[in-house]
Amino acid sequence: MSDTYARRAAELDRADGLGVHRKKFVLDEGVYLDGNSLGALPAHVPARMADVLAREWGELRIRSWDESGWWTAPERIGDRIAPLVGAAPGRIVVGDSTSVNVFKAVVAAARLAGEGRDEILVDATTFPTDGYIAASAARLTGHRIVPLDPAEMAAAAGPRTALALVNHVDYRTGRLQDLPGLTAALHAAGALAVWDLCHSAGALPVGLDEHGVDLAVGCTYKYLNGGPGSPAYLYVAERHQAAFDSPLPGWNSHADPFGMTPGYQAADGALRGRVGTPDILSTLALESALDVWDGVAIEDVRAKSLALTDFFLECVEAYVPAGRVVSVTPEAHGERGSQVALRCAEAPAVMAELIRRGVVGDLRRPDILRFGFTPLYVGFADAERAARVLAEVLADVPAHLPPAQV
Amino acid sequence: MSDTYARRAAELDRADGLGVHRKKFVLDEGVYLDGNSLGALPAHVPARMADVLAREWGELRIRSWDESGWWTAPERIGDRIAPLVGAAPGRIVVGDSTSVNVFKAVVAAARLAGEGRDEILVDATTFPTDGYIAASAARLTGHRIVPLDPAEMAAAAGPRTALALVNHVDYRTGRLQDLPGLTAALHAAGALAVWDLCHSAGALPVGLDEHGVDLAVGCTYKYLNGGPGSPAYLYVAERHQAAFDSPLPGWNSHADPFGMTPGYQAADGALRGRVGTPDILSTLALESALDVWDGVAIEDVRAKSLALTDFFLECVEAYVPAGRVVSVTPEAHGERGSQVALRCAEAPAVMAELIRRGVVGDLRRPDILRFGFTPLYVGFADAERAARVLAEVLADVPAHLPPAQV
Repeated sequence: MSDTYARRAAELDRADGLGVHRKKFVLDEGVYLDGNSLGALPAHVPARMADVLAREWGELRIRSWDESGWWTAPERIGDRIAPLVGAAPGRIVVGDSTSVNVFKAVVAAARLAGEGRDEILVDATTFPTDGYIAASAARLTGHRIVPLDPAEMAAAAGPRTALALVNHVDYRTGRLQDLPGLTAALHAAGALAVWDLCHSAGALPVGLDEHGVDLAVGCTYKYLNGGPGSPAYLYVAERHQAAFDSPLPGWNSHADPFGMTPGYQAADGALRGRVGTPDILSTLALESALDVWDGVAIEDVRAKSLALTDFFLECVEAYVPAGRVVSVTPEAHGERGSQVALRCAEAPAVMAELIRRGVVGDLRRPDILRFGFTPLYVGFADAERAARVLAEVLADVPAHLPPAQV
Repeated sequence: MSDTYARRAAELDRADGLGVHRKKFVLDEGVYLDGNSLGALPAHVPARMADVLAREWGELRIRSWDESGWWTAPERIGDRIAPLVGAAPGRIVVGDSTSVNVFKAVVAAARLAGEGRDEILVDATTFPTDGYIAASAARLTGHRIVPLDPAEMAAAAGPRTALALVNHVDYRTGRLQDLPGLTAALHAAGALAVWDLCHSAGALPVGLDEHGVDLAVGCTYKYLNGGPGSPAYLYVAERHQAAFDSPLPGWNSHADPFGMTPGYQAADGALRGRVGTPDILSTLALESALDVWDGVAIEDVRAKSLALTDFFLECVEAYVPAGRVVSVTPEAHGERGSQVALRCAEAPAVMAELIRRGVVGDLRRPDILRFGFTPLYVGFADAERAARVLAEVLADVPAHLPPAQV
């Protein structure tokens, strides 16, 4: 049986137009399905960073802020990310962590929403930091947090809703939320839509401008392969830029930063999302890493992503004894991100053994095996092998406990 | 005349116990007096970063969060910085920009001060970002900003004062503020002292624990040589840690971050100053850069720093025609940081020409020539040469305008 799937995998890999990109990355003989946690290293980045260190820092030193373009890196790199998420230039700046950008976005959106709207809807299934930060923002701005399943938000949005903060793809289940529909519903209620793109950017088309998203944030170390803890980004729709009122108005966002005047005056455009001095090494590693996207259409990435997760699920179904794992990732393509999450008894032991056997996914406690599919460097043979090794591991790790209830 | 000073410089360099550290840095034939803006590259850092990139990111990938100690880097590196600023272990975490840390510190201090204290004193001469961020924090917490010269703060602090945010060394003039005295005066008024150490850490003893400072922030890319935009740090006095209430409670500060529970529960200790995923490349470059401090006593650094700035001022006095420059850096050692700031007509043209001739300082608009002295790699011959070249440049750049009034 596994011959059949292995043969099909080989055929699919041969027909894969994105397969040529795999050689751009540092990979080993294993299967890396954790690019949705930390993207693999683009092979050209170390040479670029050696130059940044030795020449830009070591030789030019302070002159590099100007001569090496350090000062303008946040907006320059924002413009590199923009086409991947459907934004025009001038709407994205890179910098700070996702959590800090969530704070900027939630406070700014609450202010944009205006008086009388005192509710912030927060995705109750979100990656927790978004909820923690939104709660802190709400406490400071005098708003009230309403945690909801994203499916309930459209109906819940009303005249008191300032904004909703939603994850485009749920980090645990891999469910893709309806960004166009929910954004439109929020707008119909007079509220703003703030999207967290951590698990969608670089894996599927987002269409920020097209769908009228108000503000968005995302990280760059997953599908964008920017490196461990590489800086996050903030998107501000053009129509909101003039009134965007950051709670973190650091000197980098000043209209004349080197004037060093006591009075704050915000720069124009997305620049006002900047805060302090950018972490140049992490920032320039990200910039270099983005080179792998040259000539890649995000629509092709999406098509391959769905084909990969379809094929992986098919192999799992074929290889794994019934009942040992339950997929919690939606079957419908329109509701699926670029990962497959399997609920599994003894998940911690199973994932540890998978990793020992060269199939790297990750565990989301208590019982989720998470497999991320990064179309630029994961192929169909990887998907087949991961399912096969999973079946072998499950044969060796008995299910002492029944899968937990969903 | 210049022979006399050059000879003295050579003698001073021969007697300099810190002179051995210069070879640890990448320097050129020029004089680098801008280490108070961007510290020079420690020569061993590129090799360490090559390993971080190729092995820790490239090969170990996600495993490095655990196996390479990425996850615990913020507190581990905080403990490396701690002895340089007089803090015990467990009181400093590294991460985010200085601006973001000022925000955490000001909001947290305002909360620690309690009800009824609605004033935040802010150093009116501070680096502007501190003032911008403090104003934003005050707007969110319902406090009022009172901008003051630090010299007026002790008298101004009263029953309505929540905290004062003060720069330990003024970025423009190089004036060292009285940290022990002002901290005590603030405490006597029932207020908290929040210090910005950007221009003092690594240049002079700070004594955070000894002087009872409440909260402090600082950058690491000046005298700590951590690299361009390397992460800043936050100090939280032990007595405040249990009640430290961050406005940026990201998942990295959670007591059980990988539990990923919807409810936020702060970690113990300085860890609750963490926010989101740390920018590992910048963070580990900083960690590596701190190796140059092994075996260095900050008291020796301070002694050399004062000797250097004394000698530079003496050379300037000897070489530069009277009236062409006016030092705005205090003469008294107790009031001087590790830089010399000279007010000068045509300062932009003068600094540009100084840099062209290999003496790199920087300009603070409109009319300040700023020279930073980093005792680990700047010597007395550098100071003599800088003063000599300054005199030559001033001879070639006529003073079309009188020096602006102080």
